[in-house]
Formats: sequence, structure tokens, C-alpha cells
Amino acid sequence: MSAAAPDWIAVDWGTSRLRAWAMSDAGEVLAERESNRGMGRLEPAEFEPALLAVVDAWLEAGRRLPAVACGMVGARQGWVEAPYQATPCPPVATAIAAPCRDPRLSVHILPGLSQRKPPDVMRGEETQIAGFLRREPGFDGVLCLPGSHTKWAQVSAGEVVSFRTAMTGELFAAISERTVLRLSVGRDGWDGAAFASAVEETLSRPERLASGLFAIRAEGLLEGLAPGAARARLSGLLIGAELAAMRAYWLGRRIGLIGTADLVAVYAEALEAQGVAPERADAADATRAGLALARAALGETGTWPGL
Amino acid sequence: MSAAAPDWIAVDWGTSRLRAWAMSDAGEVLAERESNRGMGRLEPAEFEPALLAVVDAWLEAGRRLPAVACGMVGARQGWVEAPYQATPCPPVATAIAAPCRDPRLSVHILPGLSQRKPPDVMRGEETQIAGFLRREPGFDGVLCLPGSHTKWAQVSAGEVVSFRTAMTGELFAAISERTVLRLSVGRDGWDGAAFASAVEETLSRPERLASGLFAIRAEGLLEGLAPGAARARLSGLLIGAELAAMRAYWLGRRIGLIGTADLVAVYAEALEAQGVAPERADAADATRAGLALARAALGETGTWPGL
Repeated sequence: MSAAAPDWIAVDWGTSRLRAWAMSDAGEVLAERESNRGMGRLEPAEFEPALLAVVDAWLEAGRRLPAVACGMVGARQGWVEAPYQATPCPPVATAIAAPCRDPRLSVHILPGLSQRKPPDVMRGEETQIAGFLRREPGFDGVLCLPGSHTKWAQVSAGEVVSFRTAMTGELFAAISERTVLRLSVGRDGWDGAAFASAVEETLSRPERLASGLFAIRAEGLLEGLAPGAARARLSGLLIGAELAAMRAYWLGRRIGLIGTADLVAVYAEALEAQGVAPERADAADATRAGLALARAALGETGTWPGL
Repeated sequence: MSAAAPDWIAVDWGTSRLRAWAMSDAGEVLAERESNRGMGRLEPAEFEPALLAVVDAWLEAGRRLPAVACGMVGARQGWVEAPYQATPCPPVATAIAAPCRDPRLSVHILPGLSQRKPPDVMRGEETQIAGFLRREPGFDGVLCLPGSHTKWAQVSAGEVVSFRTAMTGELFAAISERTVLRLSVGRDGWDGAAFASAVEETLSRPERLASGLFAIRAEGLLEGLAPGAARARLSGLLIGAELAAMRAYWLGRRIGLIGTADLVAVYAEALEAQGVAPERADAADATRAGLALARAALGETGTWPGL
């Protein structure tokens, strides 16, 4: 390799995607690659080849490079099960070693978090929470991680005290692609006023979600509602309903939003309309920072304890 | 044909299915056939052949048999557009003639209903409402027609005064088949207690829908929630949220449920837990009765006015 050799590899391995970063011990990103070989479409024996296909160029003969992974790769159907840590607990625990044949690579996988009452689970977001706390060690408040399954986590004294999931992103996809609303909701386009009024509607009257969805279709048929406005309206109805469900989390609390820039912007707009001023963090930055913490806990050298 | 020759044909033609009944003037069903050639997968030129494929055995040379159809076949993308009637109005208006080449058949299509505020539309359910009113001419109350798009219609003095749609059936399908809940929700199986408590939960606290959905998945992972119980719970959360949205429709009113036996039973159970005792009617019976009214309005003989 002509570039600097990495000290370790950070891996975010979800259901549908695999992202890997070649990292220096100083926290620099030396290279980045991704693939669509998410955990959801892999058999147990396919995990190591799928990772090697992405990181092979970063490996050297005679040296075992450590990789630390988070996400669904640690689920029961993943590479190796990293059993849930029960809340309340710190967001990252000791990573679990995954079986690895290639002598140039060692892999450890971080456990997710579980909660008994109400029942809830996360895999991957705990690493982002850890990364956020690395930069804000005294944070006491609520972290919201918008995505397919948006997580709301109450964080205090370095621990996740409780959390809840709203599957808002996945609902948006299922409703806009798999119901009659696909005929009215555009694949892109936006209308800020339509979004804001829809958030307000279901946040103040959450029961309106059930009657408001088909009204998007009807308004498209009868009044030519624009596809971008329909898209913003659907998003607003769902996020308003989510904010109503999560009111106990965000009302009067310090709030941090961790996610991709576009999702963070949408949630920030909804929260700011309620007088909340959220802090913002990038999901990939937070993931790498959390994985770096786990890497430090496992040992500083390329050769890992116990290998 | 060996059986008695039909006097007319009743047709229920929705997005995904086509059902036809050979009818006598006395209201007897002489034969019944259906096909999966719903309006959603047909081009304009394919409607007449699709209908002929189903009803051909009932037709005779030298005689033009009238058919009356309701449903999405009258949409803008249907056989011929039967423009919406605006509420308040009687449920069925004059049917629109569809272009028909075969000299053995004439086809008329019933218009749907539209409402400006809040925006809403129906196609097909207005015919069932008319059929219900034929047997209960003095009905003053609310009719609920559960289905992919459940309709709630306020009916008084023979007119539909207002109506609303909750796309509960389509949401159930999209969520149980196209989100992570597909891994927890069974294709069959039921748990009456899980259904009842879920209805109660979102009916009293509709904001719980947003947080309650993923909890089904988490409870499956952490506590082995049975697939049938998960199915009943998802159905209950959605129907409870619908009842919360439609409270102004059903609270303290005379209620009629029109639908298939299984859906009517589920909605009746949810309403009865609220102290409401709905009357029940079969959807196919109501459809045929409504189509018979429209047929009578067009003329009693096999040869139609204006043909």
C-alpha cells in the first residue's frame, strides 16, 4: 500500500449495508469502503469473505490487523452472536471475538442493548451513543438517532438509562412504496410548510395519523396535491406521531440528534418548532468514535489479547 | 345454458379482483364467478375481454344482457370514468355507460363518492351502503365498511352526509409483510386477549401506535412472543388507533358493519368492548343489493334505454 498503513479497521455492519474505515490510532480516516452485503443477506460462512472483499487492500501478510464491528452483524443470525447488554448500562461493553480464518485479520463485534419493560432492542446505535459521549462526557439528556428504526435514549452518568424505538423510517418506506400512497407520494421533492403543519397535526392529535394517511391520496386525486408536498406531508404525519409518542423523552430535556445530515435536519426542524434546540452529530463520526473506544478497551496493539 | 337464464349481471370490480354474479330479477344469484384481473393491472382495451372471460357462459346471441358494475373500474384509469358524486348525496347515482363491442352485453358503471373537506373518496363502498339502506331504509347512523381502506360513513335520510377513510387493512399488510415485523408476525394464528389489550392501548392513547409497533418485534426477540399473538397485537394497535381517529363517528351512534365475516367479527369485537352493539351485514350481499337498485333505476328490460 502506498498510503499509511492503518492501525485498525472500524466496521458498521447493518442489515442492508457494510461500511468499513481504515483508521489510524490518532483517529484519522485513511480510507473508506462499503458494500451492499448487509447482514440480512449473508449465511454464517459468508461473513468473513464479505468483509475481506471490502478490507483486503488494507491487510498485510505477517500482521494481524484488528477490526471492530457494530450492528446487526452481532445478531443471533449474524457472524457471531454478541448477546444484548441489559439497560441501564454503559453503551459499549467488551466486544466478542468472531471466528476468523485469515491470519491477517482479527474481528470483534460489539453487543447491542436490550430493555425488558417496555421491551426494546438496539444494535449499532449504542456505538453511536458511546461515540457521542466520548466528545460530551458529561451529557445528561436524551439522544435521538433517526433512521429506519429511530431510537430515543435517555442518557445519564455515562449510561443508557432507558430507550424506545419508533420505526418511522421503515413505515415511511413501506407506506410510500407498498400502499396506494405510492401513487401520490413523490420519490423526491419537499414542501416545508406541508411538513410543518403535518407534524403539528399528529403531535397535537396523534389519532389523526389513522385518518390523515388516506387523505393524502384523496387530496392528490381531488385537488392535485403535488408529489413533493405529499411526501413532506406523509413524513410530517409520521414524525409528529413519533414526537407525540416520545414526548416524555424530549420535553424539557437536553437533546442530541445523531444521524445523517438530511434526517437530522428533518427531525431538528420538527423539534425546533416545539421550542427544543437539539445538538447535532454525524452518525458515521459517532460510529467511528464509539468503535475506537471499544478498540482501546481491547488493547492498543495490532496483536490482540488472547489471540 | 341449462340453468335459468339470468336477467342481468352484477359486477364488483376492484383494484385487485373482479367478481360477477348472474342475477334474476327476483334477486336470486344464479351463478357466480371471479377472476384476479382487477382494474389495477388492466389497460383500457383489456376491460371488455376481462369481463367477457368471466361472464361469457351467461350470454346469449341475439340478446343484450345488462351488467352493472361498481368499484375502481369507474376510476380515471378504469374502463370509463364515472366521475365522483360529491357528498352529501344519496349513495348511488345514475350509472355511466361503458363502451362495449360485444352485442350480447351492455355495461354501466356506478360513480364513487367524494368529499372536499376533509378530502376523501370511495369507489364501491357507496354501492354497499345503498344495498344496506335498501333493507334498512330508515337507517340513521354510521356505517363502517372494514377492508384495505376502511370507510366510516355518516348516513341520514337516505344520504351519505360525510365519510372518512382509514387505510388500516393496507397498513396491516404493508407492516406485516414489508417491515422487520414480518419476522415476528405470523401469517395466521390469533390471540383474543392480545388483540383486546392492544385495541384498548391505542384507543385510549393513540400516540402509543408509534412506539408500540417495534415493541412487537422486541417482545418476539426477548420474550418469544408467539407469531399469532404478534399478529393479533399488530391488528389491535392499528384498529385501536382507527377507532380513536373515528370516535366522533361511532360514539353514541347506531352502527352498522358491512364486510366479510372475518373482518366484521374483528371490528365488532373492538366496538363491543366500547359498549357499542353494531348491526352486521355481508359485503357481497350489500354489493348485489346496491347494484340491483342501480339496475332498476336504469330500466327493467334487457334492452337498455338509449342502446
